[in-house]
Amino acid sequence: MIQPGRFITFEGGEGVGKSTNIQFCAEWLRSHGVEVLVTREPGGTPVAETIRNQLLKAHHSEPVDPMAELLLVFAARAQHINTLIKPALIAGKWVVCDRFTDSTVAYQGFGRGLPQAWIEELKLLVQRGLEPDCTFLLDAPLGIGMARARGRAISNGDVIDRFEQEQQEFFERVQQGFHWLAQHNRRMRRIDASQPLDNVQAQIAAVLQELTGL
Amino acid sequence: MIQPGRFITFEGGEGVGKSTNIQFCAEWLRSHGVEVLVTREPGGTPVAETIRNQLLKAHHSEPVDPMAELLLVFAARAQHINTLIKPALIAGKWVVCDRFTDSTVAYQGFGRGLPQAWIEELKLLVQRGLEPDCTFLLDAPLGIGMARARGRAISNGDVIDRFEQEQQEFFERVQQGFHWLAQHNRRMRRIDASQPLDNVQAQIAAVLQELTGL
Repeated sequence: MIQPGRFITFEGGEGVGKSTNIQFCAEWLRSHGVEVLVTREPGGTPVAETIRNQLLKAHHSEPVDPMAELLLVFAARAQHINTLIKPALIAGKWVVCDRFTDSTVAYQGFGRGLPQAWIEELKLLVQRGLEPDCTFLLDAPLGIGMARARGRAISNGDVIDRFEQEQQEFFERVQQGFHWLAQHNRRMRRIDASQPLDNVQAQIAAVLQELTGL
Repeated sequence: MIQPGRFITFEGGEGVGKSTNIQFCAEWLRSHGVEVLVTREPGGTPVAETIRNQLLKAHHSEPVDPMAELLLVFAARAQHINTLIKPALIAGKWVVCDRFTDSTVAYQGFGRGLPQAWIEELKLLVQRGLEPDCTFLLDAPLGIGMARARGRAISNGDVIDRFEQEQQEFFERVQQGFHWLAQHNRRMRRIDASQPLDNVQAQIAAVLQELTGL
C-alpha cells in the first residue's frame, strides 16, 4: 500500500521569499527520497490558472464584487484540489503549495473584510476536510516585503496586479490575519523571514526533518 | 418612495424561444409604462460575461471539475446580482433575466448530478433571499428545441459550447429538473412552447397583466 503524501503550504505577504524557500523545501525533500509536486494558488492547473488571471487582472471595466472574488478563489481551488492535489497525495507524493486557504482568510477575510463564516462555509464545501499537514508562515515587517515585491514586478516589466495595487492599511490587515491564523493553528510554523536566508532555511529543514522522520 | 421593481426570469432548455419571448415581455411592460432592464445569465455585466466565456468555452486543456463549474456559475451570479440586478430593483426597474438559479438546479444539479444541497448552500450565500417574483418556464419536447439550437449555432458560425456538446440523456435530465422545479415552485408558470407563438405570448401577457395589475 502506498503511504498517502503530505500537504505542505507556504504563506505570507508579498516579497517575503516564498518562491526561494519553496524551492529549498522541494529540493530538501527530493534529496531525502521524497517525490514532490510543487504548485501554487490561485492556479496550479490550466483551468485554475485562467481563473487566476481573471482574479489578478488589474483593469476590469467594473469593480469585482467581493463575493464574486471569493467564489472565483474557491472555484480555482476546487479545480486545483480535485484535478491535481488529491490525486498526487493519493499517489503518495508530497505536495508543496505556494498559498492556500490561509491566504483567503488573510486577503479576502481580514483584508477585504468578508465574514469569516462565508469563507468557512466555502471551505467545508470545497475542501471536504482537506487541510495542510504543515504550513510555513514566512513573516517579515511589511516595508521589506512590499519593496521587494514591487521592485520585482517593475524589473520584470509586470503590471502591478489588483492586490499589489492595494493600500498600506490593506496589507496591515492581511498581516494581522496571518498572525491570527498562526496563533490559532498548530499546523502553522511562523518563521521570521527577515533573518539571513541560511537561518530561515535551517528552521525549515528542522521542521521537514520532524515531518519526514528522517 | 420608489416602489421596488419586480424580478422576472425565463427558463427552459435550448431553442425553446426564450430570446423572442423575453423581447415580447420587455416590450409589453414598456408599452405599459414600466421601466425594464433585460439581462442574462451566466453573464449580464462585463466581469460576469468573462466568467460566462470561461464556463461555455468548449476546448479547455483539461475537464472542468463540476464543483469548480458550480462555483464559477455563482461567482458570475454574485457579480450580476450585486452590480446590476439589485441596484435596478431598488431603483424601481423591472428586471427580465434570461436564465437564473433554476438553470443551475436543472443543468448542474439534475444534469451533472451535483447534490442539490450544494446548490442550496451557495444560493443562500449569494442570493441572501433574492428570488424571482415570477418565472416563465418555456417547455417544449426535447427534439424541437435541440434542433433549433444547433441549427442556429451552425448558421451563426458559432462553435457548439460545452453544454450544447452534451448527450441526449443529459438534456433529458435537465428537462426533468425544470419539470420538478415547476411542480415545487408557485412562482413558476409553465408554458407549452410548442404552441403557435401567438398563443405563447397571449399566455405571457395574461401573467404580466396579473403581475402589473394593469
